[in-house]
Amino acid sequence: MHILIIGAAGMIGRKLTSALLKSGQVGGKAISKFTLTDVVEPAKIDFNGDVATVVSDVSLPGEATKLIAARPDLIFHLAAIVSGEAEADFDKGYRINMDGMRFLLEAIRQEGVKAPYLPRLVFTSSIAVFGAPFPEAIGDEFFNTPLTSYGTQKAICELLLNDYSRKGFVDGVGIRLPTITIRPGKPNAAASGFFSNILREPLVGQEAVLPVSKDVRHWFASPRAAIGFLTHAAELDTSKLGWRRTLSVPGLSTTVGEEIEALRRVAGDKAVNLIKDVPDQKIISMVAGWPRNFDAKRAIGLGFKAEQSFDEIIRIHIEDELGGKIGG
Amino acid sequence: MHILIIGAAGMIGRKLTSALLKSGQVGGKAISKFTLTDVVEPAKIDFNGDVATVVSDVSLPGEATKLIAARPDLIFHLAAIVSGEAEADFDKGYRINMDGMRFLLEAIRQEGVKAPYLPRLVFTSSIAVFGAPFPEAIGDEFFNTPLTSYGTQKAICELLLNDYSRKGFVDGVGIRLPTITIRPGKPNAAASGFFSNILREPLVGQEAVLPVSKDVRHWFASPRAAIGFLTHAAELDTSKLGWRRTLSVPGLSTTVGEEIEALRRVAGDKAVNLIKDVPDQKIISMVAGWPRNFDAKRAIGLGFKAEQSFDEIIRIHIEDELGGKIGG
Repeated sequence: MHILIIGAAGMIGRKLTSALLKSGQVGGKAISKFTLTDVVEPAKIDFNGDVATVVSDVSLPGEATKLIAARPDLIFHLAAIVSGEAEADFDKGYRINMDGMRFLLEAIRQEGVKAPYLPRLVFTSSIAVFGAPFPEAIGDEFFNTPLTSYGTQKAICELLLNDYSRKGFVDGVGIRLPTITIRPGKPNAAASGFFSNILREPLVGQEAVLPVSKDVRHWFASPRAAIGFLTHAAELDTSKLGWRRTLSVPGLSTTVGEEIEALRRVAGDKAVNLIKDVPDQKIISMVAGWPRNFDAKRAIGLGFKAEQSFDEIIRIHIEDELGGKIGG
Repeated sequence: MHILIIGAAGMIGRKLTSALLKSGQVGGKAISKFTLTDVVEPAKIDFNGDVATVVSDVSLPGEATKLIAARPDLIFHLAAIVSGEAEADFDKGYRINMDGMRFLLEAIRQEGVKAPYLPRLVFTSSIAVFGAPFPEAIGDEFFNTPLTSYGTQKAICELLLNDYSRKGFVDGVGIRLPTITIRPGKPNAAASGFFSNILREPLVGQEAVLPVSKDVRHWFASPRAAIGFLTHAAELDTSKLGWRRTLSVPGLSTTVGEEIEALRRVAGDKAVNLIKDVPDQKIISMVAGWPRNFDAKRAIGLGFKAEQSFDEIIRIHIEDELGGKIGG
């Protein structure tokens, strides 16, 4: 099995690559080849098989065609710019988050014209396809009314994924990731970054800024859970999806205050005292339009799994990123 | 006020032009100029003011830019290929029904970079953005799960219209037209054509083919109502729409059998006997995925109006198309 990962140099891309290297298989089929691509050179990997690392921007015409010419069996499309950047740079958002997906789908379809070809395509959508006002928990049939350009772009990709799958051009599965917390590494341009920052930084003795009120409720899953969603989506029996190919996956609905209390239980008052309240009106109003809770029945019925508590999410970060130890 | 009509040579485009010529104003503002465009030359009009008729395909790069350079105040975007054709020709459907809208929105946005510009854009979406299974009546918050490429393309246009409106690039209003019945003229490639054919042809003594069962229920409005939706959308206070810029407009939910009984009341058994049952499996399965009934609360609250009976729809056809007389 040949796997193509688009967006392989990103946080999720790297973790996904590691997980696939470790398991060596997807759905019982041995992995024979990896093609790792991103706009920057993906890291070399230690794999007893064929590996290609390719610097490519699939949002540029012709790039997806080159990647698909090798006829990968399984494609993960993770490449995107985040919500804050897509809102600030309208052209770039549509190019990367929408045109990239369309070029990819078209490249797959055109490859299928040459000889039958129906790869599994796993696409990372987002809960930003939903916009306020929300019900208590967003069900599987709630409508898409995105309030950001990023959410609009992801909603369009979902529609394209459904149509290309329905027409038999691709075997698509989309997953609407919860906000991935705790994101390792440095803060990025995502307006949602603070949900991670207020835990990650204090866990290593650094200050962090909280731009919103503690009663803000949001929807979370760990990076480890995200990788589980992606590999599960790769193995899923898609005949169970019908033509609604994108799923809201399970997650944990919790408030910032509860996040902080979990931090206190795991790392004590010292860590919590490193969080500084610095209200940011721009972030406060963006967050007000974000989903807070889901009833992810379809995905749960299909075997997707997430964390049950924020203590668990923090422990996963300590295990996976901090070698099991709290610093500071 | 300068009005641009894209798709001016089509049935709705011609009727809309006539209605605007007759009223001479939109929202109390006198019309000073018409630009009528389509892929074929729109008919000349008799107007005491500036008129430009332009042959143009807005789905080709650069064409929308040329049209928007004249900074029309009000734009009707009616150009599309119908569901049957979009399903048969995948490339053409995406080019005309999706790229055309995107080029238009981009042209408007880029014109606004030169100097402030915020035209009203009235866009004809479709009930094909919805896919089965359906509730008894589709409410304003039902989700979009199109089961055709046409419906997918229209759903994408709705998302773009919302986002461009939210960003302040255009003042958009979308309306999801019911199936327009009785369509005058010759049958077109729309799979929904038979809903009109079985009335229009017998009214002039011609045979017509019914490809589905009489208990098929569907959602209708007359061409006259459609023009009313468009002019009302042009005058609407869009601050009442929020960022959900597309509305399911009111219509009439009725079965094919009820259509035929209305024909009998208006034109007698002789007309009804001209309808021949010729089941067509392809049309039967397409129709099975189409909406049947709506609860169009939002649009009704905003003053949109449709017919209350099929007798009324048939009478409108006789008045507007047959000079008040039944032929045959």
